[in-house]
Amino acid sequence: MSAEQQTPEQLPPIDAIEKQCLRIAADNWFEYPVFAHPHHTDYAGNVWHGTYLTWMEEARVECLRSIGIEFANLVALGSDLPVVELSVRYHRPIQMGMAAVVKTRMADMKGVRINWDYQIQSLDGKELYLTARVTLVAVDREKGKILRQLPSTVKDALLRVMGDR
Amino acid sequence: MSAEQQTPEQLPPIDAIEKQCLRIAADNWFEYPVFAHPHHTDYAGNVWHGTYLTWMEEARVECLRSIGIEFANLVALGSDLPVVELSVRYHRPIQMGMAAVVKTRMADMKGVRINWDYQIQSLDGKELYLTARVTLVAVDREKGKILRQLPSTVKDALLRVMGDR
Amino acid sequence: MSAEQQTPEQLPPIDAIEKQCLRIAADNWFEYPVFAHPHHTDYAGNVWHGTYLTWMEEARVECLRSIGIEFANLVALGSDLPVVELSVRYHRPIQMGMAAVVKTRMADMKGVRINWDYQIQSLDGKELYLTARVTLVAVDREKGKILRQLPSTVKDALLRVMGDR
Amino acid sequence: MSAEQQTPEQLPPIDAIEKQCLRIAADNWFEYPVFAHPHHTDYAGNVWHGTYLTWMEEARVECLRSIGIEFANLVALGSDLPVVELSVRYHRPIQMGMAAVVKTRMADMKGVRINWDYQIQSLDGKELYLTARVTLVAVDREKGKILRQLPSTVKDALLRVMGDR
Repeated sequence: MSAEQQTPEQLPPIDAIEKQCLRIAADNWFEYPVFAHPHHTDYAGNVWHGTYLTWMEEARVECLRSIGIEFANLVALGSDLPVVELSVRYHRPIQMGMAAVVKTRMADMKGVRINWDYQIQSLDGKELYLTARVTLVAVDREKGKILRQLPSTVKDALLRVMGDR
Repeated sequence: MSAEQQTPEQLPPIDAIEKQCLRIAADNWFEYPVFAHPHHTDYAGNVWHGTYLTWMEEARVECLRSIGIEFANLVALGSDLPVVELSVRYHRPIQMGMAAVVKTRMADMKGVRINWDYQIQSLDGKELYLTARVTLVAVDREKGKILRQLPSTVKDALLRVMGDR
Repeated sequence: MSAEQQTPEQLPPIDAIEKQCLRIAADNWFEYPVFAHPHHTDYAGNVWHGTYLTWMEEARVECLRSIGIEFANLVALGSDLPVVELSVRYHRPIQMGMAAVVKTRMADMKGVRINWDYQIQSLDGKELYLTARVTLVAVDREKGKILRQLPSTVKDALLRVMGDR
Repeated sequence: MSAEQQTPEQLPPIDAIEKQCLRIAADNWFEYPVFAHPHHTDYAGNVWHGTYLTWMEEARVECLRSIGIEFANLVALGSDLPVVELSVRYHRPIQMGMAAVVKTRMADMKGVRINWDYQIQSLDGKELYLTARVTLVAVDREKGKILRQLPSTVKDALLRVMGDR
């Protein structure tokens, strides 16, 4: 272990994610289009309330991809970003055959908690279907412990993929 | 409209549900056992965070069944009880092959909002995996409007099935 | 006005679908891109075997949309196209973070059975993950009976939307 | 230590599973009760066609449990039993609020292929909703290769848990 190696591990590379995400979020949200297919619906012909969580996860993963972070790589390198808390308000149902857009952005980081905000809207932005907040924490998969900062392996991955941008 | 017809429709039969549910909940919760099968899991070998919503819904529907209310009948009679709000805290993951118990009870009714509380625990009650609150409202399916009280058709169904107890 | 239009119910508009679909399928398949997100995966980090059915349904619905048939409209007009049979071969797993393409085409119609073929491949076409066949029948939703031909209401909808192309 | 234990890898313990399963299946099937909850349904109020695969998997896992094989242990020990082929016939839909029973049994083993048969019926056995066949193979998780026989680690687990019966 060299002094040089100790230093980078203390760098909080998760800040890099935040900066990128906040940059995306400066004027507008990351937008992920969805369409209500039969398997998303329930007996009422509306999207089942739990289905929205699949769309919210997809939007979050695609937001990370858009800034060069492949979630699967993060997992392969030993980290995870499990959901530790979420709250959802369902304003109006989305019915089968309707298109919508999932808007998301990293809201802030408070300690180890990474908060993401969500709005699901009609394509023209006039209807608001859902608002939500999801809180993640970074976890060391092997130890099963919360990370105060992302590990160097992840940091290196981030630097590598972000260097490509 | 006759006086006789006005009276039963003004009866707030939803109170009957509440009383029954509170009776169940007086000393203990309604308990619904679950088991983490492969399709419930994600890449981490844990139950995917959205899967818990299927268990919470099942526990709620079974709680209603236990007091004589078949949710499918309620829907067939023109009402619905959509989720309008939920908040979940994930304390510890449930891993594939683990059994657990979903505990639920109707917490209270505030105006048109029907609140249900949840705790998902280990079978011995020593581990707490999840706490949640889910808010429902009663809706007239045809009109798509929130009901201030359950319709007479539903009330009659409730009286009929509850009379069998 | 032709004589054929005087007995619209006897017109087999489903043939129109077939012709369109076979036209698409003449040289190549309808292609629907997918990406393996966390909620698609199981404990092994692979897409859970049942998840593929959601992608196959989405590809089928989008194929119909591409020729002007909105599945939700078909349902609203009183018809349905339930799956009555399916067979799937899983050649290789798709892992979290992998992109793939779901290829589908209407294979043929034998009596009331509408057969769709599927291949799920890597983006470069070099890896074959899954092959499948799905059989649908057209059903009158109210009567719950299989339709030997699509009803005039559906036919009119088809003519209307297909006229826009 | 017996001579048999010196060459554990050559023992075909998977035969033990087959014998147990065939014993269960001699006169009747392994039966797993299910109930159609809201999240199982689609816009038509019926169980969505892909949902049945979750019930079929649960029945298979519970059948294995009933003979002392915890699937999660098998995975922890380095093996897996992925689905490599399935075929399903949907005879009649199951509607929300209906109870049913998933009947399953290990049909036969042909080479490395382990075939399971399924029937989903009404509780009184008078209605047949679905018939299916699912084919599994045993896989070494680390090598990603098909196993001609279960590994000694799995075999030991099987002997240990089956010894408890």
